[in-house]
Amino acid sequence: MKIYTKTGDKGETSLIYGSRVPKDHPRVEAYGTLDEANAAIGTAVSLFTAENDAFKESLQRVQALLFHAGAELATPAEKEVQWKLKPKHTNDIEAEIDRWTSELPLLKQFILPGGCPSAAALHQARTIVRRSERLIVSMAEGNRNDEVLRFINRLSDYLFVAARYAILLHETEEVLLVPDI
Amino acid sequence: MKIYTKTGDKGETSLIYGSRVPKDHPRVEAYGTLDEANAAIGTAVSLFTAENDAFKESLQRVQALLFHAGAELATPAEKEVQWKLKPKHTNDIEAEIDRWTSELPLLKQFILPGGCPSAAALHQARTIVRRSERLIVSMAEGNRNDEVLRFINRLSDYLFVAARYAILLHETEEVLLVPDI
Amino acid sequence: MKIYTKTGDKGETSLIYGSRVPKDHPRVEAYGTLDEANAAIGTAVSLFTAENDAFKESLQRVQALLFHAGAELATPAEKEVQWKLKPKHTNDIEAEIDRWTSELPLLKQFILPGGCPSAAALHQARTIVRRSERLIVSMAEGNRNDEVLRFINRLSDYLFVAARYAILLHETEEVLLVPDI
Ligand code: B12
Ligand code: B12
Ligand code: B12
Ligand SMILES: C[C@H]1O[C@@H](n2cnc3c(N)ncnc32)[C@H](O)[C@@H]1O
Ligand SMILES: C[C@H]1O[C@@H](n2cnc3c(N)ncnc32)[C@H](O)[C@@H]1O
Ligand SMILES: C[C@H]1O[C@@H](n2cnc3c(N)ncnc32)[C@H](O)[C@@H]1O
Ligand SMILES: [Mg+2]
Ligand SMILES: [Mg+2]
Ligand SMILES: [Mg+2]
Repeated sequence: MKIYTKTGDKGETSLIYGSRVPKDHPRVEAYGTLDEANAAIGTAVSLFTAENDAFKESLQRVQALLFHAGAELATPAEKEVQWKLKPKHTNDIEAEIDRWTSELPLLKQFILPGGCPSAAALHQARTIVRRSERLIVSMAEGNRNDEVLRFINRLSDYLFVAARYAILLHETEEVLLVPDI
Repeated sequence: MKIYTKTGDKGETSLIYGSRVPKDHPRVEAYGTLDEANAAIGTAVSLFTAENDAFKESLQRVQALLFHAGAELATPAEKEVQWKLKPKHTNDIEAEIDRWTSELPLLKQFILPGGCPSAAALHQARTIVRRSERLIVSMAEGNRNDEVLRFINRLSDYLFVAARYAILLHETEEVLLVPDI
Repeated sequence: MKIYTKTGDKGETSLIYGSRVPKDHPRVEAYGTLDEANAAIGTAVSLFTAENDAFKESLQRVQALLFHAGAELATPAEKEVQWKLKPKHTNDIEAEIDRWTSELPLLKQFILPGGCPSAAALHQARTIVRRSERLIVSMAEGNRNDEVLRFINRLSDYLFVAARYAILLHETEEVLLVPDI
């Protein structure tokens, strides 16, 4: 089977289980944006140059979990989800946040997004995850999945702390916001 | 003429041939997002470090074609398009997909977006092209251009295969998705 | 206080002064997208390798000013804005555009977004700033802040010229668009 099937050339596509929807359907917007966030995390991994396999593996596990979130959003409300996102998954990233935070200086102000290239990419991923969160929120009430929303909310905090941790690992500097008032 | 004309300071701008529209007009959303996809391809080109001029030139040709797609979307329905996107253009990128695919291992699963920095940027470009596709689909029926839609649909597959090919050229590794079930 | 407060797990969040709104509220869309643009500028700074502290500082000042713009959009219309964006701020970036332009070759055509990695990231930032501009424009009339809109409009021109200037500083090449007609 060729990668290009041409079946979407007129603007329609398929959800899991096959129902046809326009490509600007709220579900497609939501999982399409998770795909975009996933790609940004991939960029962060690709730019990560410090010796720390556990950090990379943590990010790649999150990438896999985004496929769970995507599968859930691509499955019509009445059908069974095969790659289910579980409370355990959110708990795992919370534990990671706690571990990293315990090694970082306490923060009471905003920082300028950036740092080393990998940290900068994590900030970009963070903001794209937040964009996808807004799109999930705007899906009709009955279609929204609470566990996905909880996971995605926590994920942007995970990525914020991951960006700070990448700066620590690359021995670069955190720049605090100084408002120009 | 200065680059900043200040004529858009109140939120309006011009299409080709001069008609004034608000900046959140569906056409502006669509070609503005193609501009964003174009910039992401530019990032991929800038991060490409393997010796392969043909690959870079293929991406830069696609960048030029995105200006055709943009011009078409920036032209009111009743006016003549000067930089027309032609069936030949879509056929050309299909041929490129086929050429690259023939050199790549057969794929029957999802991969984690990422790889070398250039491949990761191509995945980001892929997802932004898909976002622009959703915006073109949501333009009013009569304004949608079928050839642009066909080109943009194919372009995201081209970018997927380009990402895999960049990984091959940079001798990095493809990571398959392992769902956590 | 932990970074994750869990108060947003059901899809609501707070503006400045505390009013609760859904996360897909137009104000949240607008300042969330400025955050995304800010992160893209952070990437450009992180990828900038030429010796030129003034250039980096100019970009980081703009990052700080984006927090002003964000604070303004996150403040309900009837309340006082604490980090006010002032006409002086827009004038400052206009002056920077003029300074950089005077050192650059005159341009009468489109260029392919890209160049060195830093310039490419500036082009991405440029297009995301323009996306945020569209979102600000789509906010209800009475809520739109004219000075923010003026600043954001100028900012995308600043980033275009910054991208060209980064190419100059990194001694890479500008590629002009050659339409394929
Ligand atoms: C949702 C979805 C997505 C989501 C991702 C999934 C997620 N969970 O978040 C997003 C939007 C990210 C996506 C992206 C892509 N997708 Co998709 N996707 C689907 C869809 C609708 C469901 C897949 C799914 O999640 N199944 C859930 C599990 C439980 O079911 P499953 O069927 O056992 O899943 C297997 C296959 O679907 C998949 N698979 C099987 N054959 C192939 C071939 C290729 C090339 C790929 C990439 C995957 C793939 O691997 C899974 C086994 O682990 C299917 C169509 C359909 N209705 O099934 C297309 C589908 C799998 N996708 C397809 C394609 C082409 C892509 C993209 C290459 C498109 C692009 N240009 O960006 C990318 C690849 C992304 C990547 N990283 O590899 C094609 C594959 C065609 C082929 N056989 O060659 C399909 C069949 C759609 C079609 N055109 O008919 N996709
Ligand atoms: C659509 C459009 C875009 C599209 C791109 C075009 C596309 N096809 O996808 C997008 C949204 C990407 C875009 C981006 C920009 N644009 Co524009 N764009 C237009 C618009 C509406 C039509 C241009 C077009 O496609 N013409 C189609 C061809 C067939 O017609 P043409 O007129 O012969 O095209 C020539 C010129 O328009 C262009 N050109 C002429 N002078 C200049 C000067 C500059 C600095 C540039 C960049 C281009 C340019 O080069 C073409 C010849 O190859 C014009 C305004 C208008 N109504 O004409 C502005 C216009 C050309 N853009 C302008 C600007 C400033 C920009 C940006 C710098 C804005 C920014 N800060 O991001 C960028 C530059 C992007 C780049 N990579 O170089 C200004 C140029 C002002 C000046 N003379 O200095 C114009 C005139 C609008 C205005 N403010 O009045 N733009
Ligand atoms: C608007 C806003 C944003 C905007 C940025 C602000 C802007 N102006 O553009 C955006 C959307 C970018 C943002 C991002 C984030 N934010 Co915020 N944000 C707010 C909000 C609503 C107002 C802040 C503001 O602009 N105040 C304007 C000035 C004039 O008032 P101020 O109160 O004196 O401002 C001080 C603090 O708000 C801030 N601050 C105080 N404690 C902490 C702790 C942390 C960890 C951070 C990052 C900032 C921070 O530093 C300012 C002093 O310079 C507050 C909640 C609220 N209602 O106050 C949350 C808030 C400050 N944000 C919070 C968080 C967690 C974040 C993010 C980490 C979320 C994420 N995962 O992406 C990021 C961090 C971004 C960064 N670069 O550092 C939390 C902090 C919780 C904590 N104490 O640990 C708050 C309190 C919301 C909450 N959950 O209750 N935010
Ligand atoms: C830190 C601040 O960011 C805002 N906030 C919370 N969730 C999102 C999101 N998905 N997108 C953009 N902004 C968000 C709220 O105002 C919060 O207080
Ligand atoms: C691979 C899968 O991606 C989805 N799909 C198809 N086109 C788009 C798009 N523009 N944006 C997001 N998702 C899309 C469909 O569900 C398809 O089956
Ligand atoms: C250069 C051209 O870009 C378009 N334009 C102006 N502002 C925006 C924006 N925020 N987003 C996308 N396109 C825009 C107009 O058509 C202008 O003429
Ligand atoms: Mg949150
Ligand atoms: Mg497609
Ligand atoms: Mg403008």
